[in-house]
Amino acid sequence: MSTISEMTDVAAYAAQVARAAKDASRRLAVASGQQKDQWLCRAAELIRARGGEVLAANQRDLEAAPGYGLSTAAIDRLRLSIARLESVASALEEIARLPNPVGEIIDGSVRPNGLEVSRVRVPLGVVFFIYESRPNVTADAAAICVKSGNAVILRGGKEALHSNRALHTLLALALDEVGLPAAAVQLVETTDRSAVGHFLRMNEYIDVTIPRGGKSLIERVMAEATMPVIKHYDGICHVYVDRAADLEMARAIVVNSKCQRPGVCNAAESLLVHAAIAERFLPDMARELKARGVELRCCERSRRLMPGSRAATDDDYRTEFLDLILSVRVVDDLEQALEHIDSYGSHHTDAIVTNDLQAAQQFAAIVDSAAVMVNASTRFNDGGAFGLGAEIGISTDKFHARGPCGLRELTSYKYVARGSGQVRE
Amino acid sequence: MSTISEMTDVAAYAAQVARAAKDASRRLAVASGQQKDQWLCRAAELIRARGGEVLAANQRDLEAAPGYGLSTAAIDRLRLSIARLESVASALEEIARLPNPVGEIIDGSVRPNGLEVSRVRVPLGVVFFIYESRPNVTADAAAICVKSGNAVILRGGKEALHSNRALHTLLALALDEVGLPAAAVQLVETTDRSAVGHFLRMNEYIDVTIPRGGKSLIERVMAEATMPVIKHYDGICHVYVDRAADLEMARAIVVNSKCQRPGVCNAAESLLVHAAIAERFLPDMARELKARGVELRCCERSRRLMPGSRAATDDDYRTEFLDLILSVRVVDDLEQALEHIDSYGSHHTDAIVTNDLQAAQQFAAIVDSAAVMVNASTRFNDGGAFGLGAEIGISTDKFHARGPCGLRELTSYKYVARGSGQVRE
Repeated sequence: MSTISEMTDVAAYAAQVARAAKDASRRLAVASGQQKDQWLCRAAELIRARGGEVLAANQRDLEAAPGYGLSTAAIDRLRLSIARLESVASALEEIARLPNPVGEIIDGSVRPNGLEVSRVRVPLGVVFFIYESRPNVTADAAAICVKSGNAVILRGGKEALHSNRALHTLLALALDEVGLPAAAVQLVETTDRSAVGHFLRMNEYIDVTIPRGGKSLIERVMAEATMPVIKHYDGICHVYVDRAADLEMARAIVVNSKCQRPGVCNAAESLLVHAAIAERFLPDMARELKARGVELRCCERSRRLMPGSRAATDDDYRTEFLDLILSVRVVDDLEQALEHIDSYGSHHTDAIVTNDLQAAQQFAAIVDSAAVMVNASTRFNDGGAFGLGAEIGISTDKFHARGPCGLRELTSYKYVARGSGQVRE
Repeated sequence: MSTISEMTDVAAYAAQVARAAKDASRRLAVASGQQKDQWLCRAAELIRARGGEVLAANQRDLEAAPGYGLSTAAIDRLRLSIARLESVASALEEIARLPNPVGEIIDGSVRPNGLEVSRVRVPLGVVFFIYESRPNVTADAAAICVKSGNAVILRGGKEALHSNRALHTLLALALDEVGLPAAAVQLVETTDRSAVGHFLRMNEYIDVTIPRGGKSLIERVMAEATMPVIKHYDGICHVYVDRAADLEMARAIVVNSKCQRPGVCNAAESLLVHAAIAERFLPDMARELKARGVELRCCERSRRLMPGSRAATDDDYRTEFLDLILSVRVVDDLEQALEHIDSYGSHHTDAIVTNDLQAAQQFAAIVDSAAVMVNASTRFNDGGAFGLGAEIGISTDKFHARGPCGLRELTSYKYVARGSGQVRE
């Protein structure tokens, strides 16, 4: 912390970091895909070769963790191992294999006057990324930002500071070795909480802020940020089992959506069932969910069919449990399901199970969510499942980026018009 | 104003308008392209058939105009005529002929597990559009918003209130006639300045705000808006005449970029000339620009070559004159031109004139502007010239929409994944 302990002015420090990032972003924007991929591969090599340093730093974080009041689960997420470092390194190599998004011709045409107009993909510039304690995210986020031509300012949690520093040292060394500016990836070297506020005011240098963490972090960023924010907000995801559903398929999709990883944003929180099949479907479903430890909060009609469940409050239908809890409601028809999803949901991920083509089409057309699933688990709303190759988060916004954010979502475009002396009449 | 004079609570009025817009947007999002086009054509018919009502209302605005201190030019922009109404009507018909952007499959793939994933274009939702005194913008903006599936709240200038009301009456009547919700197009019926502030807080109902007007309006909106904003900020546009330029072509491009319509954002404000050709190029250029009444503000080197010009201050190079004034600077090479554009420009539109392929490629790659022109006038950065068909503004942002904003720029997308029971391992 020597650099910082001497730097009393956090605002000046933040401005210096942001300016350096902006300068680096200009060079990164015109770096070749080859050079960026060399960096990714060299960083992977260094992480393998010098993993011992990272593990030693991680050990310091793990020792300090109980003092931060971290839960066992949080400490497990913080823990690195040789195997986890190997997966960090191979993730970098996977990103190296993705196509370079920068310079892609998105579309183009020749205008009647002969002007050749193309839309060319360009980086956004500088990304300010705020995240919590998993140190593998440090390498991942840096890789996605740099591969898409953006400089990144990483603000990790204080619980992972030593691990993040050790990883950052290797990432920066690799940048230097391949001739890219080291300030392309910077780690915020102060745990002073006011630092975030300073960065959020610097829209002159920072083009987008991406907060990944709890609701309070996101709300703070939304309130203070002076630049665009890509939010990763809550997922109140539904599975609607239609009257024309294959009930066996519905059962598997509900179980997978709820139980496969209940603590994530694309897990289902609410089950809607068409009244015509409720009696046939819900009793078995209740047994299966109960066996997996799922607590059921039910409307009156579903409660009679799901023994051992409790009554749902209106609030239950608006809650992202992130846990083995599921709210259940019987609906009269597709329309009522659509209304429920619109009023109670969070426009994240919603699924229908049906063999009725019209119902499937209507659901896909009307549900206004980042991802709409037809006969598939809500858990598929992610960058890997959708083929993006890598993701820095799942946006709950409609503006700029929606759903999984990979390389493309961290870019903008410019028009390039090539002429032969055209002037306007 | 009867509805409003009775409504003392502007906040309640704004909330009611915004809620109605949100409700309408849900219906518009799933309206067919055919129905939206019927509306456009019917509105054009009504404007032709009942143009007299609009002209009478316009007369009231024109009579009140001197009282608002409007300049002659502003009064001219406010004035409608049968010919201008005809062009308003035919603009609606042109927009009807554009393809429906909603529902377009942007891209898609089949994942290894058989999941069919597509990205489908969807409307943003509700647009809050703030603009100044030209009443033709009322119909144009409504057409672009509705065709892209969005409801719009129109806040025009008080100087055009009667004209806007008359046009809005016809637009709303046509909505009703074709079975679309009348609240798809609403006009803010109060001239109370606090109304804008209320709307800017309603991110629950309004998805994007588009201010089109002077800098102070845009700055106010940026400061107060709680939802995304598509800005239409300043254009400090450059023409760089390279050493390898065809000087005849350069002359025509400079004249067109500066003089064809000096008061608009994509007019050139600054001329950069490579030192190697300055002596051959600038004296003739000076004569030609002088003859067109252009005032020249020059660096030391260019001043010697452009008789009758005055010395430029550093501020001149940062100024959007929007007038027949041009700043001029001789640069040593392409690099210096690129640096100048990056530090003094506004990333709007910049042009190079050259026959050197490498210089053209470097300029197009490095200049970070919404539009980069090679051997063409800066004036071509607009929706019509780039083939968008219609535009609601030219965005100076990099996030979401950059450059001309047409139908596509008022949309988002959602992922639709169709499966056959896939669950996540």
